[in-house]
Amino acid sequence: MADSFGKLFRVTLFGESHSAAIGVVLDGVPAGLELDLEEISREMRRRAPGQNSLSTPRKEADLPLIQSGFFEGKTTGTPLCALIQNTNTRSGDYEPDLLRPAHADFTGKIRYNGWNDYRGGGHFSGRLTAPLVFAGAVAKQFLKREGVTIAAHLASVGNVKDQRFDPCLVPCELAEQIAGRELPVLDESVIAAMKEEILAAKSAGDSVGGTVECAVLGAAAGLGSPFFESAESRLSAMLFSVPAVKGVEFGAGFAISEMRGTQANDSFYLDGARIRTRTNHNGGINGGITNGMPILFRVAIKPTPSIAALQDTVNIRTQAECQIRVRGRHDPCIAHRAVCVIEAAAAVVMADLVLEARTYGR
Amino acid sequence: MADSFGKLFRVTLFGESHSAAIGVVLDGVPAGLELDLEEISREMRRRAPGQNSLSTPRKEADLPLIQSGFFEGKTTGTPLCALIQNTNTRSGDYEPDLLRPAHADFTGKIRYNGWNDYRGGGHFSGRLTAPLVFAGAVAKQFLKREGVTIAAHLASVGNVKDQRFDPCLVPCELAEQIAGRELPVLDESVIAAMKEEILAAKSAGDSVGGTVECAVLGAAAGLGSPFFESAESRLSAMLFSVPAVKGVEFGAGFAISEMRGTQANDSFYLDGARIRTRTNHNGGINGGITNGMPILFRVAIKPTPSIAALQDTVNIRTQAECQIRVRGRHDPCIAHRAVCVIEAAAAVVMADLVLEARTYGR
Amino acid sequence: MADSFGKLFRVTLFGESHSAAIGVVLDGVPAGLELDLEEISREMRRRAPGQNSLSTPRKEADLPLIQSGFFEGKTTGTPLCALIQNTNTRSGDYEPDLLRPAHADFTGKIRYNGWNDYRGGGHFSGRLTAPLVFAGAVAKQFLKREGVTIAAHLASVGNVKDQRFDPCLVPCELAEQIAGRELPVLDESVIAAMKEEILAAKSAGDSVGGTVECAVLGAAAGLGSPFFESAESRLSAMLFSVPAVKGVEFGAGFAISEMRGTQANDSFYLDGARIRTRTNHNGGINGGITNGMPILFRVAIKPTPSIAALQDTVNIRTQAECQIRVRGRHDPCIAHRAVCVIEAAAAVVMADLVLEARTYGR
Amino acid sequence: MADSFGKLFRVTLFGESHSAAIGVVLDGVPAGLELDLEEISREMRRRAPGQNSLSTPRKEADLPLIQSGFFEGKTTGTPLCALIQNTNTRSGDYEPDLLRPAHADFTGKIRYNGWNDYRGGGHFSGRLTAPLVFAGAVAKQFLKREGVTIAAHLASVGNVKDQRFDPCLVPCELAEQIAGRELPVLDESVIAAMKEEILAAKSAGDSVGGTVECAVLGAAAGLGSPFFESAESRLSAMLFSVPAVKGVEFGAGFAISEMRGTQANDSFYLDGARIRTRTNHNGGINGGITNGMPILFRVAIKPTPSIAALQDTVNIRTQAECQIRVRGRHDPCIAHRAVCVIEAAAAVVMADLVLEARTYGR
Repeated sequence: MADSFGKLFRVTLFGESHSAAIGVVLDGVPAGLELDLEEISREMRRRAPGQNSLSTPRKEADLPLIQSGFFEGKTTGTPLCALIQNTNTRSGDYEPDLLRPAHADFTGKIRYNGWNDYRGGGHFSGRLTAPLVFAGAVAKQFLKREGVTIAAHLASVGNVKDQRFDPCLVPCELAEQIAGRELPVLDESVIAAMKEEILAAKSAGDSVGGTVECAVLGAAAGLGSPFFESAESRLSAMLFSVPAVKGVEFGAGFAISEMRGTQANDSFYLDGARIRTRTNHNGGINGGITNGMPILFRVAIKPTPSIAALQDTVNIRTQAECQIRVRGRHDPCIAHRAVCVIEAAAAVVMADLVLEARTYGR
Repeated sequence: MADSFGKLFRVTLFGESHSAAIGVVLDGVPAGLELDLEEISREMRRRAPGQNSLSTPRKEADLPLIQSGFFEGKTTGTPLCALIQNTNTRSGDYEPDLLRPAHADFTGKIRYNGWNDYRGGGHFSGRLTAPLVFAGAVAKQFLKREGVTIAAHLASVGNVKDQRFDPCLVPCELAEQIAGRELPVLDESVIAAMKEEILAAKSAGDSVGGTVECAVLGAAAGLGSPFFESAESRLSAMLFSVPAVKGVEFGAGFAISEMRGTQANDSFYLDGARIRTRTNHNGGINGGITNGMPILFRVAIKPTPSIAALQDTVNIRTQAECQIRVRGRHDPCIAHRAVCVIEAAAAVVMADLVLEARTYGR
Repeated sequence: MADSFGKLFRVTLFGESHSAAIGVVLDGVPAGLELDLEEISREMRRRAPGQNSLSTPRKEADLPLIQSGFFEGKTTGTPLCALIQNTNTRSGDYEPDLLRPAHADFTGKIRYNGWNDYRGGGHFSGRLTAPLVFAGAVAKQFLKREGVTIAAHLASVGNVKDQRFDPCLVPCELAEQIAGRELPVLDESVIAAMKEEILAAKSAGDSVGGTVECAVLGAAAGLGSPFFESAESRLSAMLFSVPAVKGVEFGAGFAISEMRGTQANDSFYLDGARIRTRTNHNGGINGGITNGMPILFRVAIKPTPSIAALQDTVNIRTQAECQIRVRGRHDPCIAHRAVCVIEAAAAVVMADLVLEARTYGR
Repeated sequence: MADSFGKLFRVTLFGESHSAAIGVVLDGVPAGLELDLEEISREMRRRAPGQNSLSTPRKEADLPLIQSGFFEGKTTGTPLCALIQNTNTRSGDYEPDLLRPAHADFTGKIRYNGWNDYRGGGHFSGRLTAPLVFAGAVAKQFLKREGVTIAAHLASVGNVKDQRFDPCLVPCELAEQIAGRELPVLDESVIAAMKEEILAAKSAGDSVGGTVECAVLGAAAGLGSPFFESAESRLSAMLFSVPAVKGVEFGAGFAISEMRGTQANDSFYLDGARIRTRTNHNGGINGGITNGMPILFRVAIKPTPSIAALQDTVNIRTQAECQIRVRGRHDPCIAHRAVCVIEAAAAVVMADLVLEARTYGR
């Protein structure tokens, strides 16, 4: 009931998979920010489908058309609206009454009393992450000016694991390197195994999940607030907005629950005049506030719910049990495409935190 | 910068560990709710310290004094403020310039330009969870009237694990049974090992982490909204407000990332006229909206950062590296005391979601 | 920094006078609302310029193109975005450095550090009221279903005054009657004098102000809340968003300050089972909450700041005093065109209040 | 349903006239602000009743007890809660079923389904302005540091009018001078006539209204935003929260509707390097954003609804028409006591705007 997020850097999403367009309104973007549109396009392409055999063959230009808030190459400070037209839709593929398991068909129908646009998942479609990536691309350009970089990688696909970031030292060039690879991983030697995992699922009419690890670099100490406005609260709220995310952990995350305090506590030392921690089990956040170390978190992405295999379900109109085979063009895995979405989600929140920090002198 | 949470059922926390009082303002509590004050006290006692050798010996009556919004035994609908006076404080125990590792001493100082009240952790103190438990206790009584129950248990302490909830069937009497045990677990046979784990940490001048699993029962399908107002976004934002929480996962959580779609998708069936799922890997939430199954999530709690062992740190005033031994009365583990806090956090969010659902006819 | 309004029925505006498009995102529109698009067009036409000699000759089709949130003739419950393309722009007419008196040229430049789009007033343009009228038209159709009607009229132009509403009895057919007139007044006999007033100003290269009186009919008692969420607070916040509004008064308004309590107090009586008041000096609102009587308020609209007469000003770039003659196509009066904007503003707020009232059983 | 106001400087009110206490939580107060408690007490006394024959004889110490957010004489940056205990209550004076005209007895009962605390007006009591004055006193001390001063005066009582501020030049010492007078007016020669007006009403068992004019001085140009976050929107939303306010106008206000553009437009000139306007009919705000001139507004205060005279009303329980004579200790006029409340309301909003402006470099 409120597709808006943020206090000072606000994001409002709209659109359905098969509506005229999807889009986003960004409010509170600082005025005078020169936007590198080519860079934005690159970000959009990272998410775009139809790029190789690992993704859905549905091709969308996903060209964001800026409607407002942008003048002579710079943001105006007033709301920036970008539109992405839906051109390549096949509305015939969907049967609204057969509830696709693990999709929002059932909950969407209940939530909107049966009136939501069901075609292609409607407003619940992963396609809505395209305008979020646009928002993130704008946020990143603002953050870059503030010295903040965001890098994420595909930390695992099924059981195949990538390396993890060095929690205390993530080089800020990494983002670009990762983005240039066939799959966005740290250790290129795992790419083959990951592809195999994805294609194996695909050929079985199945899908597979994964995890994404993300680092926010260069963020000053002092961002965020205690309790309800903790950096973790804000980041997680945004991250759990991304469809298919089922878990979020900061720093050591769930593993910290098996540690002793002597191990988990990140002790302080001086790096010149700067206070740093020797380990980073807390993921760069203490008491809800950033401590100047890399902000680290991991996100669990579930297997694409759309699978070709036959599944049990219910026809909500006839109130009869039945079976469904989800047709259409689907990704056997979305975790790799989620990497840039997670970055975008983080960027949007960080932009908000950075702006808010100006009010108290950070 | 905004210690308020919620859209319709709003919680505002205030107070420091050693200020005159800590407290909470609840705005949007439905009018005419009969409050069982004895029940509220029971909830407060579940969190209160000083109850056995597993907790800090600091004893606080933690008696919430209702200041407003309550008349003739019922809520008035106007803001309900409850105050908990700080009586048993030992301000001499704290050295503000020595940054306690994994605490908010450093980040708090930076965030508030050195002006925050450092005594006992100040506003960052775990003591602030007491008014949150009060808020949760009020929310629970509202939810009970709506048929919603919340039950959490201590799912692990260090490596010692409790059973997990049956994801599809959590009996609603469970909450009461768990609360009555020496440690709030499902399987009483693990209590001895958990206590041993905690006391071993304690005797080593150390501390230990744990996890809490929580179930929301009886919630109607259709609560929450897509994207930024997803049930997961709202719950996680609140859960990550609770000090020491470093991870939140719904349903199968991180494990879902290793599943195939055929396994992870919760297929639908008919239970009489009701649509249910056979498994519950999605934790009762699809597309950000509840599906009527138990809402299940797990939370990672880090080891208490206050430990007696010697730790490396920095004196922020003298800008010198040094060592610290955290004195004072501390818990070797807070995970078991966090159980009722997690329930409270969930209750507050669920109350908000239930109220909002009235606007769209759920 | 937050062009969003509302808690449950949320409006987000975007666009500049000469950007690709202007538009609005409506979030929280109840699902399943059948939209009468013809009716929406009628509302848009009431605001549209270029209709007669009393308005700017700039003609805009002002055709709202719905992008999302609308499916098979009904709202889906997910964000509804409507776009109005800017087609008829003459960018050459504006000199950005000469500050037009009483416009936002100066404050906009300062606020956005010189980066705002100045063409045609940019985001400050009265054109942005077009998407607000669209929002209001949708809100009105929702309100109609709830039995709530909104009627406004041009209460004065300069010194020429229309009748006032009977404060206790405004027939709900009035809205339609008024809208059908050459000027939206109650007493058609004042139209000639009003036109004369406007045309006299026009021929003098000048402009003239006016007032709008608005009535919300059929609203249940019990809408709104005390203090910061008072019906007056919410309505006035929205009304003062409308460009050129400089005053808002409810009921007797400023005149109440000259009354005695015996006169100002609206005494209660029974109209069958319904409690009503004999007078309505409080404008249907007591303690911030509606009492079931017509909600009445008046709004002061300043003279169009764009005038052909020569005015003193400053060139902000050269920092020199100079003179300006505002060129372009301008209205000698905007008060009559503001009538439907004021209705729209009221509708949007009332929709929000009606939705919120569902959470407490009104 | 949301007794919270503000985006960055947030105010949350609680309490009823006869509850244990009333109070306020201030969130977002900048850390390290030295509070002059004596100055706060002076502000509280300006509002406090029982000071002379013009006010209710109910005496309340109205001593704010700070519970949190204040340490070693300075604000901590975390939520600041202040409590005012209710000590001098006479609960026997109220008959809940007889609806006092122009009070919130009827609307409060409807809004809260009959459960609100009716004693002394409950949460609707003018007494709730005491914590608002506290909030304003804190905000003023912050604003003073930022060079912003707020001055209001009693512009009229009934038909007796004070002078008006010089719209372009309000000396900032004025606030103090006004506050020291028997009635807070600019022209002391009107005091006698105003007192006569008030005492005449009093002796007739009646009450009288008035207006307050307020100036915000020293505010930078560039505060506020277009549309929903206009300085006028924010100020009016807060001003209409103050009980008894029925009208708000900025600059020339309603009189501007009778002006021509040539008269109403405030032309620019250079005052050294500073751009100023020769007149100030727009009240220091253009396009929702401050222009650096004094921010000027006027507020209409209705006559105290509590009067001794016999009034017609309805008994809501028996559903019978009847008569009521409001007993208890009441003010024959509240406009003079409202002066400092209006200042407080303005201060709270200005503090919020000043903090927000830091995010865009003002």
